[in-house]
Amino acid sequence: MSLSGKNSIAGELSAEGSDVFFSVDPRNKTTGSLPFYNATRAEVDRAVNAAAAAFGEIRHYPSSKIAGFLDEAAEQIEALGDDLLHTADSETGLGLPRLTGERARTTGQIRAFANLLREGAYLRAIINTEGPGQPAIKQMQFPLGPVAVFAASNFPFAFAVAGGDSASALAAGCPIVVKAHPGHPATSELFAGAINAAVAAQGFPAGTFSLLQGNGINVGQWLVAHEAIEAVGFTGSLRGGRAIYDAASRRPRPIPVYAEMGSVNPVVITQAALAARADEIADGLVGSVTMGTGQFCTNPGLILLEDSGASRDFISAVTEKMEAAPAGILLNESIAAGLNSAVSDTVTHPQIEVLTGAEAISESDYFCYRNTVMQTTAAAIRNDDRLQVEHFGPVTLFVVCAGAEDLKSTVDALEGNLTTTVHAEESELESIGGLLHQLREKAGRVIWNGFPTGVAVVHAMQHGGPYPATTAPGTTSVGMNAIYRFMRPIAFQNVPEALLPPALQDANPLGILRLVDDVYTDEAV
Amino acid sequence: MSLSGKNSIAGELSAEGSDVFFSVDPRNKTTGSLPFYNATRAEVDRAVNAAAAAFGEIRHYPSSKIAGFLDEAAEQIEALGDDLLHTADSETGLGLPRLTGERARTTGQIRAFANLLREGAYLRAIINTEGPGQPAIKQMQFPLGPVAVFAASNFPFAFAVAGGDSASALAAGCPIVVKAHPGHPATSELFAGAINAAVAAQGFPAGTFSLLQGNGINVGQWLVAHEAIEAVGFTGSLRGGRAIYDAASRRPRPIPVYAEMGSVNPVVITQAALAARADEIADGLVGSVTMGTGQFCTNPGLILLEDSGASRDFISAVTEKMEAAPAGILLNESIAAGLNSAVSDTVTHPQIEVLTGAEAISESDYFCYRNTVMQTTAAAIRNDDRLQVEHFGPVTLFVVCAGAEDLKSTVDALEGNLTTTVHAEESELESIGGLLHQLREKAGRVIWNGFPTGVAVVHAMQHGGPYPATTAPGTTSVGMNAIYRFMRPIAFQNVPEALLPPALQDANPLGILRLVDDVYTDEAV
Repeated sequence: MSLSGKNSIAGELSAEGSDVFFSVDPRNKTTGSLPFYNATRAEVDRAVNAAAAAFGEIRHYPSSKIAGFLDEAAEQIEALGDDLLHTADSETGLGLPRLTGERARTTGQIRAFANLLREGAYLRAIINTEGPGQPAIKQMQFPLGPVAVFAASNFPFAFAVAGGDSASALAAGCPIVVKAHPGHPATSELFAGAINAAVAAQGFPAGTFSLLQGNGINVGQWLVAHEAIEAVGFTGSLRGGRAIYDAASRRPRPIPVYAEMGSVNPVVITQAALAARADEIADGLVGSVTMGTGQFCTNPGLILLEDSGASRDFISAVTEKMEAAPAGILLNESIAAGLNSAVSDTVTHPQIEVLTGAEAISESDYFCYRNTVMQTTAAAIRNDDRLQVEHFGPVTLFVVCAGAEDLKSTVDALEGNLTTTVHAEESELESIGGLLHQLREKAGRVIWNGFPTGVAVVHAMQHGGPYPATTAPGTTSVGMNAIYRFMRPIAFQNVPEALLPPALQDANPLGILRLVDDVYTDEAV
Repeated sequence: MSLSGKNSIAGELSAEGSDVFFSVDPRNKTTGSLPFYNATRAEVDRAVNAAAAAFGEIRHYPSSKIAGFLDEAAEQIEALGDDLLHTADSETGLGLPRLTGERARTTGQIRAFANLLREGAYLRAIINTEGPGQPAIKQMQFPLGPVAVFAASNFPFAFAVAGGDSASALAAGCPIVVKAHPGHPATSELFAGAINAAVAAQGFPAGTFSLLQGNGINVGQWLVAHEAIEAVGFTGSLRGGRAIYDAASRRPRPIPVYAEMGSVNPVVITQAALAARADEIADGLVGSVTMGTGQFCTNPGLILLEDSGASRDFISAVTEKMEAAPAGILLNESIAAGLNSAVSDTVTHPQIEVLTGAEAISESDYFCYRNTVMQTTAAAIRNDDRLQVEHFGPVTLFVVCAGAEDLKSTVDALEGNLTTTVHAEESELESIGGLLHQLREKAGRVIWNGFPTGVAVVHAMQHGGPYPATTAPGTTSVGMNAIYRFMRPIAFQNVPEALLPPALQDANPLGILRLVDDVYTDEAV
């Protein structure tokens, strides 16, 4: 497939601006030759207006039709073949094995939403039949309208143009306008081609999907400020996510922003766990910290343990393993600069001790950073929020606590995170409940004897958490419930059967689970 | 029960400030003798800190214990007896019949939440069992933490100290700090006594509930800005709600604000409906507009119809009936002034014609305003958003459309509302679907051949809608789903059974409906 470098607006290529940028191969820092065109304000407007027009049609589509479209999109993505993998690899340096797996995850989650739609209970149909002095009230979930999606840098497939935010918004019945990440514009254009092909093949309105390129902040700001945008999905940095959230909150008509902004994913390791399997935990931890060159929002960036000989040995072992592990490639110059800046800030703190790393590998042809281990005290973490900042890369920070109470009060002082983890032993089950409760309040997902990287795309997954992990702790950006970010309930009062959607008709023609007069049932009313 | 005029902070009376205000009887504009003390910043802090401490305990309570507390609260409210009704009547002028009904609704919805908790499916337990390369993931809903509740003026029981926001937050397992409405401080203190009695009787921590008095903006601003507040429930004006929303969004750590800010609740009446039952619709409309002196957030404030002789006759009939209907009492001086100001602004518009009313009844001893009917054109509404402003009182505005297309484009130009309504005939079922779809996009509830006032407290109710009706269109402030505003999902990965809450244990000891490996079941895993 040949690339144009242009924006894709309701199925049409568009390059009205003169401001361009280029793709960079992170493996050799060479710049591509194809210019990518920053979308202009007029192009942003056109994309959103086309999405609004498309919504007028697709809001009437039955779930089954949207499911067919999602399946088609998954097929079209697979039809891009190895070209997609090579293009993404040249823009991200993530390597073919990882990208092959990520492609399977991406099409897998699109198809999982198609299955959710066919099953039907996701509509959350609720019926209260007419009673004495009480009308018939029937509600279900409906799509919100056009959604702006901001693609992430670190998952060029699974959190990007056709990633989780896009799939869940489309599944909800919302047209999407995607702001591509400038780190992989060619990959983004390939995905746009696949989705446009699905739009055409399934007879969806062209405005169902648009892709906007941009390497500055303008395109995103215009997009979020556009009157016809009803919600925003974002995956990226705290600074970027907060800027989007602030812009959306300041609109004359504010809209919800679902921003997943990463976290430090604290891990607590008990002395009993160290005694039983220090080596195993050290290996797992180093693998998790360095996986994908540490560029995961679930990267374990803060390790809490009580001071002891075993703990000091463990920290030394992890440090040695981190030094021995090969330095990976960072995705792009912006991430390399951001990581360097974040670690440089942190090491200025007087209570921070660098055990290894904490410097860019300057002789490298790559965007590269040394695997880094730092250490600090519990008091330092409690007294300075800046030590809880995310270092987006192969970096972790040990927090050595004076004892159990010191550890407990440090956990209380943690900010919101996507995950918290505890490594403990079966023998501690009776005593560890309190700590687990504490860790629960700080995260969307609590992990026992595992590592936070690796997010299963299943119904029970919660990929979210209290701010600053996200701007909406009641929602998830992974798993089936991600769809509810882009839906809202509407109730019908005494509306005749003939005007109700099938999910709310007495006969229950879809055969779905509904809550009828406070009883869950798939029977007819 | 004797009144103190003081704040109630974690069960203790407190009056540290010197800034006081007084209750006013709207029937005769007489001021009470008991001073009510504006809470100080230190008192706000103490209330929130006590709530945070209480959360540390009640977050561990099983649903059944919270249900028992809610039932006790309902009983304690009933135990206030007629004293509550007379106190509220003297502060609001709403009359004993209405207040008796509202009390039943208030205790009824508290008990409905207790039943929801005992049933258990509200926890939304989802389990994905361990599979090849996939950990066991189990999630359910947990309380958010301390919630700030802003009581409304117009429902001194059902949307106030122990109203829907309070009941749903407490049911979720969240301590609450309630900012009383200054229109009924004595009523608020009585409710505080009842809830505190329930707290004591059920052995809940005292910080579970606090009541703050205040007749300015400071108390609310301090409350929303407090670091330990996790969410806000608000019912009131657009200006007040937006100020709270803005304050919460600007926090270092933003929190969700669930503000229900009222709306104009557009009603469309077809020519066929007028031909069949103009008198019946006119009577119903006048009853709905003047009910409670028009002080309902679901008051029908905008009536759209096509121009015709029948429409002109209908408008005349409604105008005559509005003139004939007795003028009601407004709740307080602030509402009277706000209504006067809003109508005065509207009538300056050159396309607004006043058919009756549009003036305060100045000779009255009451806070009183003439029943008001105005008329304008469809083009005027489309071209000036200010004509969609809520007039909180017995006021409605007819929008006369040139024809079907003019009506259709006017509905498209409507802002978000709590409700939209259509009056039509069975003979129009085939042709009216398009209009119903349009009305659906503009509201949280669509009503067929009825009137928007009267909100059934049932599971299927949706009392919400797009901005400016609310700040969170995906949520409701009436009905059982209101609880989810104050909960968030947390997932557990490979956590041992002994550490999981009962709702997530394999044996399903609560016997609740769960989603297990994508199948809804109440069986054990």
